[in-house]
Amino acid sequence: MQENPVINLMPGQLLARGVCRHLAQGHGFSVVEEFVPERGRRVDVMALGPKSEIWVIECKSSRADFQSDQKWQGYLDWCDRYFWAVDDQFPTELLPDDTGLIIADAYDAEVLRMAPESKLPAARRNALIRKFAHHAARRLHTLRDPDGALSGFSSM
Amino acid sequence: MQENPVINLMPGQLLARGVCRHLAQGHGFSVVEEFVPERGRRVDVMALGPKSEIWVIECKSSRADFQSDQKWQGYLDWCDRYFWAVDDQFPTELLPDDTGLIIADAYDAEVLRMAPESKLPAARRNALIRKFAHHAARRLHTLRDPDGALSGFSSM
Repeated sequence: MQENPVINLMPGQLLARGVCRHLAQGHGFSVVEEFVPERGRRVDVMALGPKSEIWVIECKSSRADFQSDQKWQGYLDWCDRYFWAVDDQFPTELLPDDTGLIIADAYDAEVLRMAPESKLPAARRNALIRKFAHHAARRLHTLRDPDGALSGFSSM
Repeated sequence: MQENPVINLMPGQLLARGVCRHLAQGHGFSVVEEFVPERGRRVDVMALGPKSEIWVIECKSSRADFQSDQKWQGYLDWCDRYFWAVDDQFPTELLPDDTGLIIADAYDAEVLRMAPESKLPAARRNALIRKFAHHAARRLHTLRDPDGALSGFSSM
């Protein structure tokens, strides 16, 4: 029944798991991992809040993992608040001050620094929520009935 | 990996499975089963189309199953088009003419009569899509990480 037992997860995916637990249980968010807001971009965690707020969280397992990411500023246009999630060994001084910071492990997470808010325009918010809805429902359908769902997500 | 192998499904759920396959593969819809649009109501299949159209499909496995449903007219307010899904043995003359008709089995389905369209107001459509997004993401999260997600769906 479990899609991703811990043993099969990469370091960044373990962080994402803890982040998703915390956002769901502590903040009332619904989450999807590896969400594609537009062709060519994929965010680690996209979270939809109880007031339709949209947070994006990128999970970095190491300094190298962070330094090789050339694309993160492009994600700022796809959320109200942007966060990094790292483990407690990560050199957090590398991270820009004007972004949010979450310390995570595979089991839980904590928001150490709230990200500044940059509110999405209403039309983009609605379009993102529609995309989030399609993405989550198709992945759910694929798990419930592997022969039954469409295979691709990126087309929506 | 499969949540609902055929052997564990009730007759109405088998119809829902075929309906979901057909809507996903043939019409580009994303689907969730047993969706709760508001407290006290639960629809068998809620489907979100590529143009954000919302269809509701109630699955009836027998004459008795249909005749015991006192609530279906209440679902008309929650969709652009309303359908019944039944198997090929069902006495379809029982069904109201001004609703859609889908013939289904566990493996596929076919739209025999398109439902008339009664367009949702924009605000209700957006609210339903948000609820659909939360519902699908939480069920997906529960399957991926059974210890990690919130348990309830009806609160959103």
